[in-house]
Amino acid sequence: MKGIEHIGIAVNSLDVSIPQYEQLLGVPCYKKEEVESEGVITAFFKLGNVKIELLQATRPDSPISKFIEKRGEGIHHLAFDVQNIKEESARLQENQVRLINAEPKNGADNKLINFLHPKDTGSVLMEICQEK
Amino acid sequence: MKGIEHIGIAVNSLDVSIPQYEQLLGVPCYKKEEVESEGVITAFFKLGNVKIELLQATRPDSPISKFIEKRGEGIHHLAFDVQNIKEESARLQENQVRLINAEPKNGADNKLINFLHPKDTGSVLMEICQEK
Repeated sequence: MKGIEHIGIAVNSLDVSIPQYEQLLGVPCYKKEEVESEGVITAFFKLGNVKIELLQATRPDSPISKFIEKRGEGIHHLAFDVQNIKEESARLQENQVRLINAEPKNGADNKLINFLHPKDTGSVLMEICQEK
Repeated sequence: MKGIEHIGIAVNSLDVSIPQYEQLLGVPCYKKEEVESEGVITAFFKLGNVKIELLQATRPDSPISKFIEKRGEGIHHLAFDVQNIKEESARLQENQVRLINAEPKNGADNKLINFLHPKDTGSVLMEICQEK
C-alpha cells in the first residue's frame, strides 16, 4: 500500500454537506460523480496530500443507507492507493485478509477498487484502489 | 488546513492491533507514546503521505474507552495538519465551527492540538494539529 488515496464519509445530503465541508476544509468540491453499481453519489475535495469523498445514498439498499441507518453520518471507509491491485490482493490474502469482491470492480474517479473484509481489519472498512 | 496529518483508529489492544496493522499496511510501527492527559497509548505507522495512529485506552474514563463502549473498535478521528493553530481556530470559529478546548493543548508526536465539535462537522471527530 502506497498511502491514503481518499477518506470516505457517509452523509445524508450532499446539498447540506458540500457547503459545510467547503467551509471546514477551506477548499472547493471539485467533482460530483454517481457510482450506479454502489448506489451512491460522491463529491470530492482535494486537501493537500489526500482526497475527501462524501457519499450520499441514491437508494435504500445502498451500503451508505445501511451504514447511516446503523451508525449515523460519519467516516465510512479509508481508501489505500496501490500500484497493482491484483498483486496487493494476493499479498493481503496471503496474510489471511479476505476481500469482499472476487475481482476488482469499477469505482468513482477512474479507479479499480476492492474492499477488505472488516472482520480482518479491526472493524475498519478499507478499500484498495488502483488508477485505471 | 494543509492536509491530513494522521487518521486515529480506536483499538482494544495495541498488542493485538500492532502486528495486525503491520501485516495490513506492510510497514512497521515506528513509535509508541503515552498521552497521559488523554488516557491513551498511541502507536504510529507512516504510510506514504499520511500517518495511522492506533489508540488504546489506559483508563475507563478515557475518550477511547467511551468510544469503544458505544461503537466498538474503528476510525476515531481525522487529524488535519495546520500551519498556525491559532489562526485556523479563528477561521473555523468565524465559520460557526466550535472547538472543544479553549486553548490548544499538547498531543502525541510533538504537536499542539485541538478538536472540532462533532455537531459542527457532520459527526466526524476532527482534530487540528500544528508541529511544535
